[in-house]
Order: sequence, then C-alpha cells, then structure tokens
Amino acid sequence: MRSYATEFIGTFFLVLTIGCTVLAGAALAPVAIGAVLMVMVYAGGHVSGAHYNPAVTLAVLLRGRIAPRDAVAYWIAQLLAGILAALTAQYVVNPTTVAELSPAGRTIGAALVAEALFTFALAYVVLSVATSKDHPVNSFYGLAIGFTVAAGAFAVGGVSGAAFNPAVAVGAATMGLFAWSKLWIWIVADLAGGAVAAGAFLALNPGDRAPLETSAV
Amino acid sequence: MRSYATEFIGTFFLVLTIGCTVLAGAALAPVAIGAVLMVMVYAGGHVSGAHYNPAVTLAVLLRGRIAPRDAVAYWIAQLLAGILAALTAQYVVNPTTVAELSPAGRTIGAALVAEALFTFALAYVVLSVATSKDHPVNSFYGLAIGFTVAAGAFAVGGVSGAAFNPAVAVGAATMGLFAWSKLWIWIVADLAGGAVAAGAFLALNPGDRAPLETSAV
Amino acid sequence: MRSYATEFIGTFFLVLTIGCTVLAGAALAPVAIGAVLMVMVYAGGHVSGAHYNPAVTLAVLLRGRIAPRDAVAYWIAQLLAGILAALTAQYVVNPTTVAELSPAGRTIGAALVAEALFTFALAYVVLSVATSKDHPVNSFYGLAIGFTVAAGAFAVGGVSGAAFNPAVAVGAATMGLFAWSKLWIWIVADLAGGAVAAGAFLALNPGDRAPLETSAV
Amino acid sequence: MRSYATEFIGTFFLVLTIGCTVLAGAALAPVAIGAVLMVMVYAGGHVSGAHYNPAVTLAVLLRGRIAPRDAVAYWIAQLLAGILAALTAQYVVNPTTVAELSPAGRTIGAALVAEALFTFALAYVVLSVATSKDHPVNSFYGLAIGFTVAAGAFAVGGVSGAAFNPAVAVGAATMGLFAWSKLWIWIVADLAGGAVAAGAFLALNPGDRAPLETSAV
Repeated sequence: MRSYATEFIGTFFLVLTIGCTVLAGAALAPVAIGAVLMVMVYAGGHVSGAHYNPAVTLAVLLRGRIAPRDAVAYWIAQLLAGILAALTAQYVVNPTTVAELSPAGRTIGAALVAEALFTFALAYVVLSVATSKDHPVNSFYGLAIGFTVAAGAFAVGGVSGAAFNPAVAVGAATMGLFAWSKLWIWIVADLAGGAVAAGAFLALNPGDRAPLETSAV
Repeated sequence: MRSYATEFIGTFFLVLTIGCTVLAGAALAPVAIGAVLMVMVYAGGHVSGAHYNPAVTLAVLLRGRIAPRDAVAYWIAQLLAGILAALTAQYVVNPTTVAELSPAGRTIGAALVAEALFTFALAYVVLSVATSKDHPVNSFYGLAIGFTVAAGAFAVGGVSGAAFNPAVAVGAATMGLFAWSKLWIWIVADLAGGAVAAGAFLALNPGDRAPLETSAV
Repeated sequence: MRSYATEFIGTFFLVLTIGCTVLAGAALAPVAIGAVLMVMVYAGGHVSGAHYNPAVTLAVLLRGRIAPRDAVAYWIAQLLAGILAALTAQYVVNPTTVAELSPAGRTIGAALVAEALFTFALAYVVLSVATSKDHPVNSFYGLAIGFTVAAGAFAVGGVSGAAFNPAVAVGAATMGLFAWSKLWIWIVADLAGGAVAAGAFLALNPGDRAPLETSAV
Repeated sequence: MRSYATEFIGTFFLVLTIGCTVLAGAALAPVAIGAVLMVMVYAGGHVSGAHYNPAVTLAVLLRGRIAPRDAVAYWIAQLLAGILAALTAQYVVNPTTVAELSPAGRTIGAALVAEALFTFALAYVVLSVATSKDHPVNSFYGLAIGFTVAAGAFAVGGVSGAAFNPAVAVGAATMGLFAWSKLWIWIVADLAGGAVAAGAFLALNPGDRAPLETSAV
C-alpha cells in the first residue's frame, strides 16, 4: 500500500504541474515538468521505485523488477492520480479556453514516432540509472529521469504534446488538451516505447538480467 | 546560535532573490528562486538542516527531528530574515510600481489549494530526501528541495504568487507584493501543507518514525 | 557490440533533440540539448563511456583510454546515428523552411575559434570528470558534460551553430542547417579542440597518464 | 604551475561565456554563466580548488586553505584570463554596439550592496560545499557554486551587472560593458563580500578552523 500511495502522490504532482503550466500557457513548461518529475523521483524512489508512468511500469515489469500484481496496482494508482490532478489543475487555473491537440493525417504518424522514441528514451534512462548493477548507489537518477522528459518536451511538445506517459495522456484528455478519440495514439506509442526499452536495456546490460536485485533507488 | 544564524542567512538570500527578480519583473524568476534555495540548502544543511521556511520547520517538528524550543527560534530567525531581505530588495531594485496580489472570491479558494498542495510537496520532498534512513548520504537533497519550489512557482505563480513559505509571504507583504489583509491565506495554507506532509511521510516511511536520528544533510 | 549500440543510441537522441528543437525554432534549445546529452551520458556511460561525439572519442584515444579499433567503430556508429536522427527529425517536425548557416569571410574565423574553444572545453570536461583518478566514483559527470554543451550553445550558437561535435555537424548538414561546402569548418575545429584537450588534460593531471585505468563512468 | 593553468582555463571560459552571451544580448545569459562555472568547477576542482575568482581566492586565503604566495599567482592567472577572454569574446561576437554600465548617484549604492551581498553568498557557498569537514566527498559542489552565480545574475544583473568577481569585472571593462572609471565599485564590493564570507564561515563552522585540511574538491 505504501508504494501505491507513493505512486499516486508522484503522478498527481507530475500531472498537476503539467496541467497548471500548460493550461496557463507557460513558456517554460518543460523545465517545470522535468523538475517536478525529478523531485518526485528523489522523494519516492526508495519507497516505490518512482515510476509515475504506466509505460515505465511496463518496462520495469518486462525487465523483471516488479511483480505483475503490483504492476496492475501501480497502473490503477497512476491513472487515478492523473485524472484527479487534471481536475485539480482545472480548478486552480480556471482557464477560459483550452486548445485541444487532435493529430490527423500525417501528424498522426509524426506523433506516434515522437511519442514512441522519447518514451523509449525515458524508459531506457530509468532502467539504466535506477536498476543497473554498475552504479548501485548514485545521486543522479532523479536528475536523469526528470530531464529526459524535459528534453523531450522541448523537442516534440509541438508535435505530440510530449506525454511519454499514458497517465499523463489520460490527464491531458480530462483537461481537454488531448482529443479523447485520439487517445490511442499515446497509449499505443508510449507502451510500445517502454516495452522496446526493456528489451534494449537487457540486450545492452547482460549482467543485469537476473530479476529483483537491489537497485540504486 | 550557529543554526539560527544559518537559517537567517539562507532565508535572507531566498527572499532577497524572490524580491529582486519579482520586483524587476524577471521572466525566469522560478529558476532563480529554485537555484538560490538549492545552493543555500547545500551551504547550510550540515549546520541547521536548512529549513529556511516556517512550514518546513513545522513539518520537521511534527516528524520529531527538531526540539520545540529550537523550532521557535528558527521561526523567529526566518521571519526576521524575510522582512530584512524584503527591505533590502526594495532598496536594491527601487521599483517604480509594484502589483499587489490580493485574492478575492473564487481566487481565494484557488490560492489556498495551490499553496497547500505545493507546500505539501515541498515538505514531503524535504523529509524524504534529507531525513530518510534509506539514503543517509546523498548529493541530491538540495537539488530536489530547490527545484520543488521552482516547479511550483512555474505551475501556480500566477494563481497564488507561489510562496509555499510563511517567511516568504511576510517578505512579499513587506514589499507590497501580497496584500497584508490576505496574508492569512498563505499562513494557513502553507502551515497546513507542511503539517499534512509530516503525517504522509511518517505513514509512508514507517522505518523512519524514531526521532532525532542522523540525517543525510 | 554493446558499446557501439550504446554510442548509436546516445548520439541518435542528441542529434534528434538538436534537430527537433532547432528546426522548430525553440528558444531554449540549448537547455534541451544539454539535458539530453546529460541523460544519455548517465544512461550509457557505464557501457560505452558515453562519448556520442567523434571529437571526444579522439580525445579519449589520445588520452589512451580507448583502443584505435574501437575508436573507429565508435566514429562509424556516431556518424550513422547523426544521419538517421537528422532524417527522423525532419520527418517529425516537417519544417516549411530551414535557415542554412554558411560562414563566409570573417565569420569563418569566428566560427573556427568558437568551435575549437568550446570543443576543447567539452573534451577537457569529459576527461576531467569521467577519467580522472581523483574522483573515481562521482554523480556529477553527466551534469558537467551536458551543461558544457548547453553553455557553449548559449554562448556561440549564433556564431557557429554550436555543434562541438562532427556527428552533430554531419546531422545538421543533412537537415540543411549547415552548408555541406562549409562542413570542413566543424570537422577541423572540433577535432582540433578535442586533440588539444587531451594534451591539456595529461599535462594538468600527470597522475592520470597510465592508460586504460578504471573510470568514474 | 598546474593549478595556475587550471585557474587560467576556468576563468577564461567563465569570462568568455559571459562576454559572448552578454555582447550578443542572450536572454538566458544567467543560465549559461552558471552552467559554465559549474562545469569548470567540476573539471578543475581537484587540481586547483577551482576558484576562478579573486574574491573567492581571498576568502579561501582568509579561511587558511591557500598559501599567500599561491593566492597572488591565482590572482594574476585569473586577471590575465579575464582580459584574454574578453578580447576573444569581442572577436567571436563582433558586436556593433555595446551598452556600458556606469552606476552614478543612488545606483552606486545599490550596485555596491548587490555585489557585496551576492559575492558574500558565492564565497559562503564555496567554503561551505568545498572545504567543510562535514561532507568531505560530495557530488554537488559544482552545482551549488555555479548556480549561486546564476541566481545572483537573475536577481541583480540589471542593477550591478552581476560580476561577483573582480576578474569578471576587469573582463567586462575590457569589453566596454563596465565603465573603467567605476571599476572600483566591483573591486571593493566583491573583495569585501568574499572577506566577510570567510569570517562567517569560520564562525558558523568552528570545527573547520584548522587550516589546510583535505577538501571535498
């Protein structure tokens, strides 16, 4: 229960910060989003592993570091947190208008590629900095994870909205930022990116293939 | 006395940086504010614990890591530093006009929610990164603490002014940035956020319930 | 093969982020670029050393920490990644117009100086933070390496385009950002900067002259 | 000689980055400046202590961690690097016009206060994170030092130019950014801030009063 609550808190503040900055049109939203993910990873990593993202939980599951039962509970906690944070951001910011992102035609392909690539990068970084035997105790894991999302948000925010996270995508749809009818784009691309990252990590780190070892977080 | 002086110095530079950036209308004030809090946490953490914030001191008190007598002295040092820094910022920047934030009607509710949530996040991060037995020596505690405030300032700066800190609120009122008659909003919400964070930390970290252990800072 | 694949992944995301931010005209491209380099260094440093840059590989070769055969393989992986990332960025962003940088006259000299100096700084930082015996295990190497590029991009982005990396230069030429006929500027200046940095590092760190020791990464 | 050369390199890139960003009117100059100082501290700290600033060298001298003979050599290396970097920045950027900061009347007082306070903060942070016995090996010293200057540059850049460093002030005067006739403002305020910081550090860290111990850097 403690790890599920930690996943809820971390995902809540991630989506709340995304909602408040994007609904208010803040230019530096990527820095704020990367920062809040970083701090929540540092705050909760020792309790839950600090996924805050169903695609990361999928990658950790495929890498063999979380039990399937716990992964399902994490997904539920992450999605509930995303929806509640979206409603909270709407109340706090009270926006007059919201621009809905609804990819169509060629931009669907661009959004799929952008989301899949940067979610791959995110899950690859998470597995590499927080679950590798080669740096079991380090102080950079939160910085690396948070600023992967910041870099991706700067790079493809204008293309795909830069969710890289199905719980963020559901929260964004709740706030009217993503079209519900296009939500499959983010679900499919983000889970695919996470799954491929697990395979890449295991291929590149053969010494880390045994499951459930101690981690840096 | 050494720890009270350290609290004074850290809070002074936090409020001075807030005052100078906000009075001059700097667009990236959240980065500057997060950075100065981070560096003062690294500089003073080993001496005083580097609270620089009455709401954090309250959270640390409820978590059992500071004596009540010292907490009162910390509060006095923090408030005096906030007022002196505000007067210094006014002298240095010499602003011609200052926009006063005075929530009314529905914005009072939004400000209360925004302040309570991000002050909760700040105190939750402080307790998690600087007082948990699970990472007794780490190098990320200042980065995590400083950039929680930066993220919150980007997210809700336009809603509540993003104090997350009664000493900052008093300093902001001294500079004319917050209405004195509405100061209760920040005092109430920030202390409530800090108090709830102490309870959440202890619930999520049962191994950390014994008081006055050694900390990471 | 694992280290070559890691070089490919890291260089791919570096050039992809450069391409997406620059083709879309993002104002904070230097922050995004520094961040993605940082996270890829943390993710891949323990596998390949995380060069992601032929000039850095040259510096590491001259410093005696990589075999010539591996250096050639790294260069090939880096250049292929740069070209593929450039094509991907073009597909994702789909820019209508691209401004080509083509130094001529005095700006050739300025670009040569800017590129050589900041590539020297980059390779000097890499060797100092990731291969020195004086801090064999540290958590700052990625932060230092990534933000050297960020600082240089802010400083001379308007002069030389701030490649500091022949693989980036080739990727930029592929995207139409650098003139192919002027590509020699970046190749020559960046390799020269890296080579001089290897000499400076060895002169300043006489205790590190023995080759192939264990590194911080 | 190795430490003098390291001081020269670090100060050179600090002033070069300041010159290039300020002469080109970059909005985010404080981030670039904080970043380059951070990376040069990480790169050179283990060789020279990474002062890159005559006011910091004065503080370290008064704290008893550098011999007077070396301090003089450091000052010479820092000033020469500042002048050479200024000339290089002028060549690279080739600015058409340069706005000279020349405080007069009440702005002299504001500049003196701003420079003295943030140079105090910088030297206080340097001594606390890099010379305290309480965290002999840490990975945050460069981050803390660099972002003290970034925070100060955001806060008082518009008031005093945010040198916090006599070598930067001399470089700025060389580039026409500071009036030579007002250079005493920065020399006096910055050295005073550094000297007071040494006293404050020793008062707050009585266990660190013995000279020439091993440091974190």
